[in-house]
Amino acid sequence: MRKDPLFDLHATDGRARAGTLHLPHGDVPTPAFMPVGTRATVKAVAPRDLYALGATIVLSNTYHLHLRPGDELIARLGGLHAFMGWERPILTDSGGFQVFSLAGQRTIDTNGVTFRSHIDGSAHRFTPETSIAIQENLGADVIMCFDECPPPDDHAYNVAALTRTHAWAERCKLAQKRADQALFGIVQGGIFPDLRAQSARFLVDLDFVGYAIGGLSVGESKEDMHAILDVVDAILPHDRPRYLMGVGTPEDLVECVARGVDMFDCVLPTRMARNGGVLTRTGRLNIRNARYADDPAPLEPDCTCYTCTHFSRAYLRHLHRANEILGHHLLTIHNLHRMLDTAREIREAIQTERFEAYRVDFWERRRISYE
Amino acid sequence: MRKDPLFDLHATDGRARAGTLHLPHGDVPTPAFMPVGTRATVKAVAPRDLYALGATIVLSNTYHLHLRPGDELIARLGGLHAFMGWERPILTDSGGFQVFSLAGQRTIDTNGVTFRSHIDGSAHRFTPETSIAIQENLGADVIMCFDECPPPDDHAYNVAALTRTHAWAERCKLAQKRADQALFGIVQGGIFPDLRAQSARFLVDLDFVGYAIGGLSVGESKEDMHAILDVVDAILPHDRPRYLMGVGTPEDLVECVARGVDMFDCVLPTRMARNGGVLTRTGRLNIRNARYADDPAPLEPDCTCYTCTHFSRAYLRHLHRANEILGHHLLTIHNLHRMLDTAREIREAIQTERFEAYRVDFWERRRISYE
Repeated sequence: MRKDPLFDLHATDGRARAGTLHLPHGDVPTPAFMPVGTRATVKAVAPRDLYALGATIVLSNTYHLHLRPGDELIARLGGLHAFMGWERPILTDSGGFQVFSLAGQRTIDTNGVTFRSHIDGSAHRFTPETSIAIQENLGADVIMCFDECPPPDDHAYNVAALTRTHAWAERCKLAQKRADQALFGIVQGGIFPDLRAQSARFLVDLDFVGYAIGGLSVGESKEDMHAILDVVDAILPHDRPRYLMGVGTPEDLVECVARGVDMFDCVLPTRMARNGGVLTRTGRLNIRNARYADDPAPLEPDCTCYTCTHFSRAYLRHLHRANEILGHHLLTIHNLHRMLDTAREIREAIQTERFEAYRVDFWERRRISYE
Repeated sequence: MRKDPLFDLHATDGRARAGTLHLPHGDVPTPAFMPVGTRATVKAVAPRDLYALGATIVLSNTYHLHLRPGDELIARLGGLHAFMGWERPILTDSGGFQVFSLAGQRTIDTNGVTFRSHIDGSAHRFTPETSIAIQENLGADVIMCFDECPPPDDHAYNVAALTRTHAWAERCKLAQKRADQALFGIVQGGIFPDLRAQSARFLVDLDFVGYAIGGLSVGESKEDMHAILDVVDAILPHDRPRYLMGVGTPEDLVECVARGVDMFDCVLPTRMARNGGVLTRTGRLNIRNARYADDPAPLEPDCTCYTCTHFSRAYLRHLHRANEILGHHLLTIHNLHRMLDTAREIREAIQTERFEAYRVDFWERRRISYE
């Protein structure tokens, strides 16, 4: 059973918040970065590596797991935690975003979405009820309402989609059978403050235990994203966790925590790693660069991760050029450490009321622009 | 400096031997299986994974490292141990086998081999002296003489090649400058007992600290391979380690230890893993097989490796079908455990004079033929 309360808010510093999510598989300190394990694996690392990195929760994708290997198979094998050998909390999305971004030939109606698998073209249908049923088969600690993700700058489309998303949120709440999963509502409304405010109010009236902010980081400007967060932060109840879906560069963590967000997920650190991209305290580097061929230094001089304490840039460049799996593994470890460590630093700064100083220092260190 | 003696022979059981190699970076109990780290990485696993598996020595390839990233770069970065972050012993081959199996447009003369890189077509030349110089740059604990690897069943070719291989062995010994590396001679001679005996006697006269047996497991029958081992075992001095190059299925370990071999290396466990192949106590399985789709059991019921103690066949099949890196990582861990554990079991059986009973039991468990 889910513990009550789900969320303890320990400290605030301006609008930045530090808290703890209490979930069946453990506590999650916030602000939290959730590594993405799309197909029941955070790419290129094992659960024991994630434990060593201090990851407290991972995200997995309902759409992908429904298609392969199938949520019913996962349920027969004891649920997603047992299936992927991960003993800490999991959050699953609703499949909404993937249906709109990945699937082929989709048809939207009042009751749901019919689409074709991007893997084999087979026909599938998601409704609020099937999304919840699939997520109950998977058995994550936190689950999401099924929502529609329209292009962020099409007002008319967003108005129509919001009507469906809100009706589906009500139906998801009614469809929920398991009492041990925390169901979050998802605020939509594109880049339009009026629609976002309307959506936040509607969902607050439905009284969810947590709220996600969806449909952002899909091409809109940072200014638009921050303006929406300002609107939503003022409406969502302060005693409930807020999760900004699909957002999570180090810069985003700092700027969105400053606007009241508690939880983040993003494929960036893991995807970048497989392309040779490295997150650093000052920005980014790409290990393929010839300047690192002879470089005995670690990726970052003071980093405490396994990769930086054992391997040189020269070695990591060699691995990457040779397309060795170990290169993907070691860069993924570093990038996840950088994200998780940034979240830990932010939390500590909030708890000691130094968040603004941390934020100023964070930007002074940067050598990259934020856009 | 290298410790003396290099090799302690603790126990024999029939012709099977249990000993310890004393090397600058640590002791290696024998019989030993050496995981292959061709390009300065055992594919899909990190050094900390190999330590956890109990690997005491790895092999790396002179040919590959000379071409990329270059042995001089590795020397500038402190040698191969520092470069790949591996603190235990390393053995490098001489590049001979790869020049004859991988490189393009090779020309053999009395002094060495001119060839083209299989990566970029660039021209290179290996002589006994350059092979030793490269291996001294790499800095492995055990290094090999430069040899020629002819087709095993061409007698005339083997006669001519053996003349070169023996002259090159003398030159390698003279070329060696570092006193901290153990240089092994390599017995050649194809499937011909007379040539193998001649080669073993010639190299024994040169008084190497250890002996490799090369040019086997390249297409000849197991009977031919075993007949050659019988010939060589009778000639090589019992107080020196014997290394059978490129050989190493579980079945080979048992049968070749029975014929006096101490050291093995093979890409089989790591390469198989990346193709879904799993080594078991009874033979092999392939995780892609549909029968495992729903199977909650581990790869092997009583296996103590990280993979078998945490993950089901169903999950590993899912990872493999989705081509997830974690699948390669976890299958590699299991297969290396199976090889290293087989070597440990064999050693214990020899030390307790139960080797023949172990061998009988080993074959009774098998459901696969050995050929």
